[in-house]
Amino acid sequence: MLTIGILGGTGPQGRGLARRLALAGHPVVLGSRSVERAAGTTADIGVDGISGGSNSDAAGADLVIVTVPYDGHAELLSSLAELLVGKIVVDCVNPLGFDSHGPYAIAVPDGSAAQEAQRVLPHSIVIAAFHHLSAVRLEDPRIDRFDEDVLVLGEDRDAVGVVIELAGAALPGGRGVYAGRLRNAHQVEALTANLIAVNRRYKTHAGVRITELP
Amino acid sequence: MLTIGILGGTGPQGRGLARRLALAGHPVVLGSRSVERAAGTTADIGVDGISGGSNSDAAGADLVIVTVPYDGHAELLSSLAELLVGKIVVDCVNPLGFDSHGPYAIAVPDGSAAQEAQRVLPHSIVIAAFHHLSAVRLEDPRIDRFDEDVLVLGEDRDAVGVVIELAGAALPGGRGVYAGRLRNAHQVEALTANLIAVNRRYKTHAGVRITELP
Repeated sequence: MLTIGILGGTGPQGRGLARRLALAGHPVVLGSRSVERAAGTTADIGVDGISGGSNSDAAGADLVIVTVPYDGHAELLSSLAELLVGKIVVDCVNPLGFDSHGPYAIAVPDGSAAQEAQRVLPHSIVIAAFHHLSAVRLEDPRIDRFDEDVLVLGEDRDAVGVVIELAGAALPGGRGVYAGRLRNAHQVEALTANLIAVNRRYKTHAGVRITELP
Repeated sequence: MLTIGILGGTGPQGRGLARRLALAGHPVVLGSRSVERAAGTTADIGVDGISGGSNSDAAGADLVIVTVPYDGHAELLSSLAELLVGKIVVDCVNPLGFDSHGPYAIAVPDGSAAQEAQRVLPHSIVIAAFHHLSAVRLEDPRIDRFDEDVLVLGEDRDAVGVVIELAGAALPGGRGVYAGRLRNAHQVEALTANLIAVNRRYKTHAGVRITELP
């Protein structure tokens, strides 16, 4: 079983993914700037197999998931670049802004957060995935079936396959689905703004499912 | 029943929408630069209630759907602006490019094709919708159930409601779903590049369904 590190793992998305990956049997290292906070969050999640640590500790895992806010994303990855050499780095970051009209996608100089990660980590294999999952649903212990799919983008077919399998294991009922190259990551990240609009209008925790998959 | 005009209606998307809207009982005017081609396409579709004409004829309908290629989109709408005053104009245009690596989203100066349409048609109500439907499935007479949802974006709540209803009527089993304001249309248009990547990898005609709607 791959060990999974989660950078910025004390936020809702990190906590939710940690829960689901640990329930699927993966040892998880939940990383944070604050080791104390990571330890507290790990205790709160209350699922076996999760340990708290620094972001460097999390970057030591076999596969590393990035759930930090977009602000500071490049700086954090840059500081961990050596630890991440040769590893699959799964970027889930959604560069969004909010104003009185709600959420909107912000322009990213590299095209997308995932492409920014790949620029900063030239010796890692960056995959974009896990953008559209509701943290509320991931964290809810009463939920054990998912209709949601995980769109998985990347250049390396083997690494894409690893993340597709990881998504399927973490979300019983859901699927990892290959959805293109990193140059098409921007719209996948930005679509989270539309899902927030759906959530506000329909008072729900929406996700995306791909229809007509064989 | 609203009459529906389809600009550029002789392409696969236009033909497919014409079929489904006519089957739902809407009189459809399929518009084209070539009236002869429109007449031929209308005969080919073979569903009652569709008539062929010029794009100006189509622009005379109660509600007008735009399924032209992105190239020439602004020019065509500009030339029809007077006929479209006060009407709901549903933009389905996906600004995409293709190269040896497959499809990719192209940058649109106004942000999205839908925002471009709204700029060119300041006295119309532009709604973005119908981007992700497979023309192959829309045109297939053997298909009478859809899992696909239609993301509907716009500023005017009533007009959004009209298009949500239209989508639900046209796609038995599918739903129109409000998915945000026009400033969040870019990623919805661009997501079509990801669906093409899905189609190529899985040899299918994929669409999108929103999960956890009440």
